[in-house]
Amino acid sequence: AAQGATSTEEPSILVTVEDGLRIIKLNRPKKKNALNPEMYFRWTELMHEAAKDDKTVLTAITGAGDFFCSGNDLGNFMNIPPGGEAELANRTKEFLYQFIDAFIEFPKPLIGVVNGPAVGVSVTTLGLYDAVYSSDQAWFQTPFSQLGQTAEGCSSYVFPRLMGPGIASEMLMFNKKLSAHEAQRYRLVTEVFPHDRLQQEVWPRLQALAKLPARCLIYSKELTRAADKEILKKTNRAECERLCERWQSEDCKNAIMNFFSRQRK
Amino acid sequence: AAQGATSTEEPSILVTVEDGLRIIKLNRPKKKNALNPEMYFRWTELMHEAAKDDKTVLTAITGAGDFFCSGNDLGNFMNIPPGGEAELANRTKEFLYQFIDAFIEFPKPLIGVVNGPAVGVSVTTLGLYDAVYSSDQAWFQTPFSQLGQTAEGCSSYVFPRLMGPGIASEMLMFNKKLSAHEAQRYRLVTEVFPHDRLQQEVWPRLQALAKLPARCLIYSKELTRAADKEILKKTNRAECERLCERWQSEDCKNAIMNFFSRQRK
Amino acid sequence: AAQGATSTEEPSILVTVEDGLRIIKLNRPKKKNALNPEMYFRWTELMHEAAKDDKTVLTAITGAGDFFCSGNDLGNFMNIPPGGEAELANRTKEFLYQFIDAFIEFPKPLIGVVNGPAVGVSVTTLGLYDAVYSSDQAWFQTPFSQLGQTAEGCSSYVFPRLMGPGIASEMLMFNKKLSAHEAQRYRLVTEVFPHDRLQQEVWPRLQALAKLPARCLIYSKELTRAADKEILKKTNRAECERLCERWQSEDCKNAIMNFFSRQRK
Repeated sequence: AAQGATSTEEPSILVTVEDGLRIIKLNRPKKKNALNPEMYFRWTELMHEAAKDDKTVLTAITGAGDFFCSGNDLGNFMNIPPGGEAELANRTKEFLYQFIDAFIEFPKPLIGVVNGPAVGVSVTTLGLYDAVYSSDQAWFQTPFSQLGQTAEGCSSYVFPRLMGPGIASEMLMFNKKLSAHEAQRYRLVTEVFPHDRLQQEVWPRLQALAKLPARCLIYSKELTRAADKEILKKTNRAECERLCERWQSEDCKNAIMNFFSRQRK
Repeated sequence: AAQGATSTEEPSILVTVEDGLRIIKLNRPKKKNALNPEMYFRWTELMHEAAKDDKTVLTAITGAGDFFCSGNDLGNFMNIPPGGEAELANRTKEFLYQFIDAFIEFPKPLIGVVNGPAVGVSVTTLGLYDAVYSSDQAWFQTPFSQLGQTAEGCSSYVFPRLMGPGIASEMLMFNKKLSAHEAQRYRLVTEVFPHDRLQQEVWPRLQALAKLPARCLIYSKELTRAADKEILKKTNRAECERLCERWQSEDCKNAIMNFFSRQRK
Repeated sequence: AAQGATSTEEPSILVTVEDGLRIIKLNRPKKKNALNPEMYFRWTELMHEAAKDDKTVLTAITGAGDFFCSGNDLGNFMNIPPGGEAELANRTKEFLYQFIDAFIEFPKPLIGVVNGPAVGVSVTTLGLYDAVYSSDQAWFQTPFSQLGQTAEGCSSYVFPRLMGPGIASEMLMFNKKLSAHEAQRYRLVTEVFPHDRLQQEVWPRLQALAKLPARCLIYSKELTRAADKEILKKTNRAECERLCERWQSEDCKNAIMNFFSRQRK
């Protein structure tokens, strides 16, 4: 929870586990589920918990409210610690690395239930899920260049293989926004549902899948990830190092100042 | 042929070679071309023969009757040798490894002519063909989890790259069945034909391709496979080791008992 | 310029740089922009120049006239040097290697603006661009087997990953011609435009992209290429060595003689 939160405040991430299905729900709807540092830590922790918990067969990630997740809260860049920008960039780099690593190492099926628009790191990490079911009202954007930044979430490795190099370039370099149906065509999304049917269609399906033999699923995923795991870890490291440099660059500072000055108008 | 077969019985795999085109036809239509150990051995042997034969430019695999191939004959699991289940699992692992390896190492164009539904290992190996032409009445399923098993045929490596990770997960972990047109959209199938036109469209095309310069085809395939061959061999080994464990697991035994008790009802 | 060219002749490749956008335009329209050795050298040189030039943010390749590029000028094979065919093959191998290497190493966004049909090396290299925008009147063909040759431009590695192995086999082994819309479906092309709107739609878009922060684009591309660069370089070398053998083979000589005797009729 944010500084000064009282114990009556709702947690920013909700968790339930029932009959093998664990649901992790981003719950900061007034901020479009933007991720602050506490949420990165908590989400990472919940991934480790899900990995270890014998009662968890299948894990689903979804969002409360209209957005799936609006990505990194840009306000995170305004809260400069005593060590200055370099300290902020280095801290952020480390928790981002750990957060992405939890996806790379996650040993069980991980399903995205994308209830609305997704931005930035909530899009790039979708490439590390096992399947993604999306509302037709969702859209997907990773405006890294526009913000003076570069790709994370292993998207620089995963997106060209998923989408082909052209659409991946348009997403990662040229700030292209994909509709849900485009995201399906380019394989970021596995299946698209009419918005008002998403919940009733997807949850019973996931409840049924959570009854499959847990070890078959774990072993299947292990075989599937074997060839890529080392390269994903290396990519995560390289992306985080580059972002650490980017966050301290003039490109990024100018872009974020412009973002906030546009917001104030 | 099965034990006790007489010499008048039709062979379970038919072979013809004419003008550079070798056709290997699964011929156990009453069993939906399910593969027994003899058929694995014979098919492997025929692949080696095709690789060496100077008169074979192009090799096509197809099925007699309504099915392309219903996969591994589950009856294979009922025929326990004196050494018990462990011996059965180890034997099966070895001939499965050799069978898949024959696809990985096959040096000439290999074309699937999918005349009807395909299940299990006959689906996973399609990812190792150079092109796959299918009837619109075919469908494709690899119900590994449902049977307490895990992926083979290098599908844990090939399918996510072919189909994207979402559809590959649905196939390999969640028992999804693909129609022929879905299989084409997800790149498992190269082209779909109306069922009653498949034979007359595909064979003349393959006869024409078998007149191309044989060395160009061999060298092209060699270049294409170079980057993947070691990883395919490693994947095949890892998948076979995991299956050997799975076949002796409670998950698998329960699933196969359920399968046969459902059949008896 | 060709032998005996006067200084008033138009250069076979035109270049402009304006507001960050460099346009390299093949300009031998009477020969459908077929590449002679001088054009390979010049294009390679222009890629190196674009890579180094601080004023170049985005580089676009396009063609003058009706064709994008008809590939390697087969007339190149008729101009036998004193050292004979072996010398010709070795020379060609070396400048082809350097040409493809310039694409592999190109550090900035590279965009194809495909104004018409593309053949051979102008198709294979498209797999090394960051995005490809095409006229709906373009088509794409790499008739290597028909000419007794094998793949180049890293297509033996890139095409199966881009298109799936089936369509890649049909292109690289079976001489299949793709329409612009097929090329988009199989991810060789990023977006297709009606022929008469291509120029007015694409250039303003590229002018806008050339205003993005240059370092973000360079770093994004560096991250994206990191996992593949060594394998692309190795593939380029293997493909060039094989072609050097092919060009001296009977398969190739017969195919090229047939080509010219058909032309004369």
